[in-house]
Amino acid sequence: MIDAALFGAGLIGSVHAKNLARHPGVRLRYVVDPRQDAAERIAAGTGAEVADTATVMNDPSVKAVVIASATRTHAELIIGAAAKSKAIFCEKPIDLDIARTDQCLAAVEKAGVPLQIGFNRRFDPSFATVRKRIDAGEIGAVEQVIITSRDPEPETEEALAGGGGVFREMTIHDFDMARFLLGEEPVELFATGSSLVEPYYAKLGDYDTAMIILRTASGKQCHINNSVRAVYGYDQRIEVHGSKGMLQAGNRTPTSVSLSGESGIAADRPLYFFVERYADSYEAELDHFIQSVGAGRTPAVGAADGRKAMILCEAALASAKSGRFEPVRF
Amino acid sequence: MIDAALFGAGLIGSVHAKNLARHPGVRLRYVVDPRQDAAERIAAGTGAEVADTATVMNDPSVKAVVIASATRTHAELIIGAAAKSKAIFCEKPIDLDIARTDQCLAAVEKAGVPLQIGFNRRFDPSFATVRKRIDAGEIGAVEQVIITSRDPEPETEEALAGGGGVFREMTIHDFDMARFLLGEEPVELFATGSSLVEPYYAKLGDYDTAMIILRTASGKQCHINNSVRAVYGYDQRIEVHGSKGMLQAGNRTPTSVSLSGESGIAADRPLYFFVERYADSYEAELDHFIQSVGAGRTPAVGAADGRKAMILCEAALASAKSGRFEPVRF
Amino acid sequence: MIDAALFGAGLIGSVHAKNLARHPGVRLRYVVDPRQDAAERIAAGTGAEVADTATVMNDPSVKAVVIASATRTHAELIIGAAAKSKAIFCEKPIDLDIARTDQCLAAVEKAGVPLQIGFNRRFDPSFATVRKRIDAGEIGAVEQVIITSRDPEPETEEALAGGGGVFREMTIHDFDMARFLLGEEPVELFATGSSLVEPYYAKLGDYDTAMIILRTASGKQCHINNSVRAVYGYDQRIEVHGSKGMLQAGNRTPTSVSLSGESGIAADRPLYFFVERYADSYEAELDHFIQSVGAGRTPAVGAADGRKAMILCEAALASAKSGRFEPVRF
Amino acid sequence: MIDAALFGAGLIGSVHAKNLARHPGVRLRYVVDPRQDAAERIAAGTGAEVADTATVMNDPSVKAVVIASATRTHAELIIGAAAKSKAIFCEKPIDLDIARTDQCLAAVEKAGVPLQIGFNRRFDPSFATVRKRIDAGEIGAVEQVIITSRDPEPETEEALAGGGGVFREMTIHDFDMARFLLGEEPVELFATGSSLVEPYYAKLGDYDTAMIILRTASGKQCHINNSVRAVYGYDQRIEVHGSKGMLQAGNRTPTSVSLSGESGIAADRPLYFFVERYADSYEAELDHFIQSVGAGRTPAVGAADGRKAMILCEAALASAKSGRFEPVRF
Repeated sequence: MIDAALFGAGLIGSVHAKNLARHPGVRLRYVVDPRQDAAERIAAGTGAEVADTATVMNDPSVKAVVIASATRTHAELIIGAAAKSKAIFCEKPIDLDIARTDQCLAAVEKAGVPLQIGFNRRFDPSFATVRKRIDAGEIGAVEQVIITSRDPEPETEEALAGGGGVFREMTIHDFDMARFLLGEEPVELFATGSSLVEPYYAKLGDYDTAMIILRTASGKQCHINNSVRAVYGYDQRIEVHGSKGMLQAGNRTPTSVSLSGESGIAADRPLYFFVERYADSYEAELDHFIQSVGAGRTPAVGAADGRKAMILCEAALASAKSGRFEPVRF
Repeated sequence: MIDAALFGAGLIGSVHAKNLARHPGVRLRYVVDPRQDAAERIAAGTGAEVADTATVMNDPSVKAVVIASATRTHAELIIGAAAKSKAIFCEKPIDLDIARTDQCLAAVEKAGVPLQIGFNRRFDPSFATVRKRIDAGEIGAVEQVIITSRDPEPETEEALAGGGGVFREMTIHDFDMARFLLGEEPVELFATGSSLVEPYYAKLGDYDTAMIILRTASGKQCHINNSVRAVYGYDQRIEVHGSKGMLQAGNRTPTSVSLSGESGIAADRPLYFFVERYADSYEAELDHFIQSVGAGRTPAVGAADGRKAMILCEAALASAKSGRFEPVRF
Repeated sequence: MIDAALFGAGLIGSVHAKNLARHPGVRLRYVVDPRQDAAERIAAGTGAEVADTATVMNDPSVKAVVIASATRTHAELIIGAAAKSKAIFCEKPIDLDIARTDQCLAAVEKAGVPLQIGFNRRFDPSFATVRKRIDAGEIGAVEQVIITSRDPEPETEEALAGGGGVFREMTIHDFDMARFLLGEEPVELFATGSSLVEPYYAKLGDYDTAMIILRTASGKQCHINNSVRAVYGYDQRIEVHGSKGMLQAGNRTPTSVSLSGESGIAADRPLYFFVERYADSYEAELDHFIQSVGAGRTPAVGAADGRKAMILCEAALASAKSGRFEPVRF
Repeated sequence: MIDAALFGAGLIGSVHAKNLARHPGVRLRYVVDPRQDAAERIAAGTGAEVADTATVMNDPSVKAVVIASATRTHAELIIGAAAKSKAIFCEKPIDLDIARTDQCLAAVEKAGVPLQIGFNRRFDPSFATVRKRIDAGEIGAVEQVIITSRDPEPETEEALAGGGGVFREMTIHDFDMARFLLGEEPVELFATGSSLVEPYYAKLGDYDTAMIILRTASGKQCHINNSVRAVYGYDQRIEVHGSKGMLQAGNRTPTSVSLSGESGIAADRPLYFFVERYADSYEAELDHFIQSVGAGRTPAVGAADGRKAMILCEAALASAKSGRFEPVRF
């Protein structure tokens, strides 16, 4: 049984809180959030205690922290937890700045603590199965990967202005998935973005509609398409083409019900958004973290993965401006 | 918060134990099972206490009992719990004997306690959605129902010999589903059974392969097909035809992954068996029970439903012998 | 090159005319129909000549006749063509009367001419493939067959009054399919029918909604469900369960297009009715007939099949009245 | 009734010959091919006459020519037919050289004859339906198009060496489809290619695996993925995302049969290659040509479309070398 603390009582923090509370191998001791009522709500539902950062850091019984607070607080919390030898699970991105990211990684390495990044999609049962079946040789050598990743609705202008932009907030997951599925590091990246959905994306110098191509040294290719609006629901599909076949993973729906009526055969829309669609993966990634910590194993998705995804985001920003393949230098 | 006790620490008892332990509105106090180690395993995982029947019945703080023990113990436990004014959730069937079933129902009625029967499939998200969409008028008047219900593997000869036979153990769920979907009581039933899978079904005078037709007073029809062996996994599908269209609910699969290879496009088999396939429904039916008890409401699936399903089983046994439509007299 | 004549210039006659005109191994010489304009329309489109029955029968160059005229004319045309040693393709049913059917079969046998019955569905690419894959052992021994056969709209009251009723006009195809897929003759049949769609079905003593179960000597079972109204289009599906798996053949749609929109994922309705749905099978059955005639081979679907399907219709009529398994005596 | 001649008796010429022979509005008079036996085979099956180019060109009764001969012969035949005022249907590409293409277009324009280019996929029932439903406003404004286009097997080294390369032979169809679906001309194009399938693609300076992004002036985007080897069969899918939803068109299969067995649910592979997959479209495009010629209407897919597709091929070749967005100058 590992004692843990949670930073961040927002949407994703609540998801982690529920999974920590249910997990037989962990005791959720503390919840930290500047929004006292949000923290209290989670505390009430889980038996945890509302605390401040210092209390958590200074309590030696807390062996693991789960960081789901605002992005700008990640770096300080990572460095603080590492200094106290606590195992760290941190939502992506580590930091919007690569130099600051490197400081975090140095601190973690020096402390020798495990750090897992919240690339939950690797733990989605379907996506994880695709990876396993590639490894089992079912499609031979991977040649092309196609990632469809479309949100059901745009961010508000306020949220967009306060965040890192579409590549660093949304595509970052797809970049990690590209690396996960290609099985070889990308060396070049091309991106193009438009603002077709909401004018404030353009106003803020951002994109709401994007297409990307990555390429590895041996010539494997990956395409990502993004939009911030899919009126039919969260669209999350992957397709991997290899020398011996193709593996696809499709969307998930709330039910298996279809209606055959005068106007056609109608099936369910995909599950609405990430909380529903990736519910299994959030549970599985924390289980992986807790089990890794318990067994003294390095978690499968580590600091280097977080850093590389950020570098791909930077390359995408550069390419969308330059109109050319940008080199990827990890 | 309702204090509850669980009778039965077998496969289905374990499912209920886990759902009771997770439920925020209930505290699982006791587990009762003659197999001490099975009871202790559940107790260890849930914080409940291993107890005997008398302790549970005599503890006035226990407001609700969940009966998942062997079928032959159901009647006595129901009568005992009713006498102590405890709310009752009981797995189907109430009893293999209709007269004994009627004694249970009389005891429950006299005591005025809620009784819910474990027809969990009504709470399956897809099947429940079909019922809701029929009620919403999406397919007009129901005309025909088709229920496909096929187990992945036969029972062992020992289990079969000790149980109530395929109609009372397996088809009983389909009979409840037929009533649930037809929305009008069947008045006639035709059944035919064969033994094509395992010779011991015939040896024991039972069937491993069956087809049934039910008919209501207004002429609505329902077909059920059963087999005890579907090598591709648990096959549980429903199809409802109405004057304005058809609603179908299909199987569920572990992942959404498909492989396109030289020999075709291959998708997952359905989830293996009832524990996996109906996991959601087990959680939902207990939640319904607990909420009904808490709010003083009558649960949706009650004693009469359990009794009627048993009468349909009797009619099926009679028809499979007589080769004719048997009247259904509830 | 075989010279042929067509009797009947109605809907199904037109389908055959088009396929005969296209076929490289046949020359369509004559079209016969009391409705002169209908015959002329077909003649104009195919290069055939409008003629009367005597002309066709007395022209020794006509080696094959295709009978797609009204059911009551079939017997006389079969007997006439047999007397002139012409190969015969005849739409089902041979005749509504079994004794008369037997006269036809005797005439054909005496003449030693090939006779093929228009059970076109055996030639549907999907259904034919199911049969081939059963024969290849892909699902082991057949145990249960489920046939869904639902027309998009009812017959008019006039057509219904003038025809043989729903079992002899519609279900007859399903009975042939049952025999085709079971691979063993049915020995018992149970049927129940209702009138839920149009009151004139009841008024005429007929059914618009029916369910049937057939059973073979070894205990294999087949279920058929029929309705004369499927608002979503012609619903023609088969499902065969065997000891090693299940083969299914589904509906066909005009396109592969789907729309993902706010209200769900919408696919095409099935093709509207038999002319569209079974277009391939009409072409294939005539090709089979012509090739059989050319090579002096007995066609695969012969007189006995037509007769047996009629006997199953009679058993269904009897069972729907008696409410019991009726014996099937071929 | 229009008299027509066919140039080219190869694979695609045979497809056109069959469709011309079947068409009620056309009489196929001549077949021209330097391979005498190939021409004779087609002549025998269609009633056409084997002839040389001069005979065809000098026969004033020939009102239309269908050019399906080797690419290098297209330009001369177009110019020759235009000089004789014959309507022209020509397989893509017009010529591998843009200047030569322009000479053809000038000749055609001067002669005032109709010219249709063989972009058959626009006439595929599913793809044509997608276009119609976009026009009907079903998905609002188009934002992104995704085209999956993968051949079942690579060309031989000989064929590859003698042809125009993968972009001009294969992707050219996808470029036309991109223009067809975007509804706005692309202004920039990015392409990257690898040789992962057969080393002779690299040896010949060509690509067997490619990804492309096109972009219109308003920021609409289109992705194309190509491979010369899809072991599961010809993979031809389109996906169009708009402000109000997504339209998808999938592959077509020979049957609707699926097998549920111990290892999963297996469906048919897609139809093998273009002759099977696009059979309907070849028939429909010729029908469109013949009807346009008959009615004096300009065919829907004209010279400008052929030219623009070639310019996109040139841009792809340039981009695959430069690694940057290349401008598209029509």
